[in-house]
Amino acid sequence: MAEAHDVVDLIRTKRDRGVLATDEIDWLIDAYTRGYVEDAQMAALAMAILLNGMERREIHDLTQAMIASGERMDFSSLPMPTVDKHSTGGVGDKITLPLMPLVAAFGVAVPQLSGRGLGHTGGTLDKLESIPGWRAALSNDEMLAQLADVGGVICAAGSGLAPADKRLYALRDITGTVEAIPLIASSIMSKKIAEGTGALVLDVKFGSGAFMQQESRARELAETMVALGKDAGVDTRALLTSMDVPLGLAIGNANEVRESVEVLAGGGPADVVELTVALAREMLAAVGQPDADVEAALADGRAMDRWRRFVVAQGGDPDAALPVANETHTVVAESDGVLARQEALPFGVAAWRLGAGRARATDEVVHAAGIDLHVKPGDAVRAGQPLWTLSADDASRFDRALASLEGAWEVAPVGTPVDVQPIVRDRIV
Amino acid sequence: MAEAHDVVDLIRTKRDRGVLATDEIDWLIDAYTRGYVEDAQMAALAMAILLNGMERREIHDLTQAMIASGERMDFSSLPMPTVDKHSTGGVGDKITLPLMPLVAAFGVAVPQLSGRGLGHTGGTLDKLESIPGWRAALSNDEMLAQLADVGGVICAAGSGLAPADKRLYALRDITGTVEAIPLIASSIMSKKIAEGTGALVLDVKFGSGAFMQQESRARELAETMVALGKDAGVDTRALLTSMDVPLGLAIGNANEVRESVEVLAGGGPADVVELTVALAREMLAAVGQPDADVEAALADGRAMDRWRRFVVAQGGDPDAALPVANETHTVVAESDGVLARQEALPFGVAAWRLGAGRARATDEVVHAAGIDLHVKPGDAVRAGQPLWTLSADDASRFDRALASLEGAWEVAPVGTPVDVQPIVRDRIV
Repeated sequence: MAEAHDVVDLIRTKRDRGVLATDEIDWLIDAYTRGYVEDAQMAALAMAILLNGMERREIHDLTQAMIASGERMDFSSLPMPTVDKHSTGGVGDKITLPLMPLVAAFGVAVPQLSGRGLGHTGGTLDKLESIPGWRAALSNDEMLAQLADVGGVICAAGSGLAPADKRLYALRDITGTVEAIPLIASSIMSKKIAEGTGALVLDVKFGSGAFMQQESRARELAETMVALGKDAGVDTRALLTSMDVPLGLAIGNANEVRESVEVLAGGGPADVVELTVALAREMLAAVGQPDADVEAALADGRAMDRWRRFVVAQGGDPDAALPVANETHTVVAESDGVLARQEALPFGVAAWRLGAGRARATDEVVHAAGIDLHVKPGDAVRAGQPLWTLSADDASRFDRALASLEGAWEVAPVGTPVDVQPIVRDRIV
Repeated sequence: MAEAHDVVDLIRTKRDRGVLATDEIDWLIDAYTRGYVEDAQMAALAMAILLNGMERREIHDLTQAMIASGERMDFSSLPMPTVDKHSTGGVGDKITLPLMPLVAAFGVAVPQLSGRGLGHTGGTLDKLESIPGWRAALSNDEMLAQLADVGGVICAAGSGLAPADKRLYALRDITGTVEAIPLIASSIMSKKIAEGTGALVLDVKFGSGAFMQQESRARELAETMVALGKDAGVDTRALLTSMDVPLGLAIGNANEVRESVEVLAGGGPADVVELTVALAREMLAAVGQPDADVEAALADGRAMDRWRRFVVAQGGDPDAALPVANETHTVVAESDGVLARQEALPFGVAAWRLGAGRARATDEVVHAAGIDLHVKPGDAVRAGQPLWTLSADDASRFDRALASLEGAWEVAPVGTPVDVQPIVRDRIV
């Protein structure tokens, strides 16, 4: 059968700053999924999209075409509303772990299809796999049953959702085209819309430790995704949040689970609590509970109860000891002063070099590896006081991790003013 | 062995309007030739180069790296200077056929490594293969012997010259990245420099029937190539020539050979003679014969003698009848007037649809197919007078060919002034 379009013509259109029609985009994604359009052709087009952009309508069509490339999930049989969260990722971002049970405690279903980490930002599934027995793979029937019973799942996305996106994502990774906002937005939103959630809250991060460095780019991405969600009938909202400093005190896997449990027990670092509460409020507002008292559910054990039921439902033991590293190395302050700087990216890279992350998709993560911070910017420090502790299974990893931290932090003289900003910077609805 | 560079970093550099270093470009072309850099990565880079450009130094390095990817030829054993010509191609461009023997008649060696046609502009080898017995494939030893004896060859380039360019050219063709000046210039010049010619004259065409539509882009390409040639020690010059109207009266294969023989016999259409003579003068000037009387060599049979020796040397019979088509269709004027317009591109497409060109590299051309023009812009026509004759092996081809000509020409009322410009518009040395 003759093809409806010529892929070279479509590439030329975008190259010359033209606009692709709906039927052209539909054909393109279908032909790419079928293998008729080659990776080299899609790579040239991705670069043209990165450099010349896409109109809102084209991004909408691209998202719909990627959804159409695979199966859709259906949560309509559940007796409660569904709401999901997506974060663009950052150093120490474990928010899904306390957030899911917190929101589920209000009688809402939270279907969190998550991924594994690649590069310096860890994956939610990697962190949870620190819990003995916990498993990430659920069938669709298991997912639905657990959502109805526990109110939440955190599990691996099946391969049937938006397969065109899966292939395109891997291609972008090797062709320098990851950073194109139309492609990021359609990649995230095609999976979330195909997943079938009724509402969605996006945590779009910006700063030195985030995927997007500039606030303006993060805002553009957030606005694009909110519009895409609304177009598809999903109540979508976004928070713009800063990622210049690691989130919380734990960077790694098992230690991030420990910190999440502290938050669920009513404690935990102030920034993790701030962001968890802010996202929970948005999620509950999106499903008609704008006045839910989320702090109370952390304080009175309702969120912790959901967490324990969630861990058990997926085969884990919530009381089991989490893995501990064989080796630790603690960095201490050389003088009295105030911690003036603690840059997210180098701390993320250091944790990755300690074994907490993976360089290739086939690598294993070391669940006990990572960094525990003892101070955050603005905290006073005394000479000899521990600043952070590095953990690894092999002491030979410390040198390269410490090298990554060189110049990434600063203890300023006592009394130096340090400007500590709130995490949540704006809200896009 | 670890690779010296990360290809994604290099793509990002060009994507972000940076400049690639010499060692980065050397590594890139070597790694692409080895197959380490994938087609998809090179396609993304080619699009970034098309949209963001390259500095002169980068284009020079790219050309040198492509030369280094393969073998180089060596004409230094010849007793005479060598000079080659390259045309960017156009409708009815058969200039190589009269030009090579004309220049060879002055004791100069002309090594024309040529190609086959793809798309509406025919290939020189396709045209010559209309001659019974003539063969395009020569070994390097045969080439050298024929250059010493006859003074010229027109043959297929061996696969050993700039193999990186060969792979990149095929990739550009399917990824909408053919039109990047840095890639066009390095592709042409890497082959010409690797071929080992001492001097080179470029015919860079612009207009509706040329690869480059705009004169400014053709000028940029010409200047880039002249600088690349000089950098490599090749005396390089360029003529900027117009390609809005078909060149000469014949568009096809066998009919273009016939027209070339007319020029070699001292006749032929004025525009073909004008361009042949202008290019011959440049080529001869480049090898120290600025005052050569090229018209005399056409008039007195010296050029024709070289042509006959060349055809015989490559197995052909210069006296054999050329193929004639089974079917013809003549378009006649409907009224008296003056031919005001005759657009190159539609006439080229019409000849291609008649069978004179190929859509895929594996297609065969029909040597007898094509178009013979009986009038050119500015010529007076009478009602009922033949304007052009279409030839094909199958009459069913005429409808689509005639459709291509619709709106492509115009007979204006008697006395309408028609502006006929010279072909050669500028000279870049």
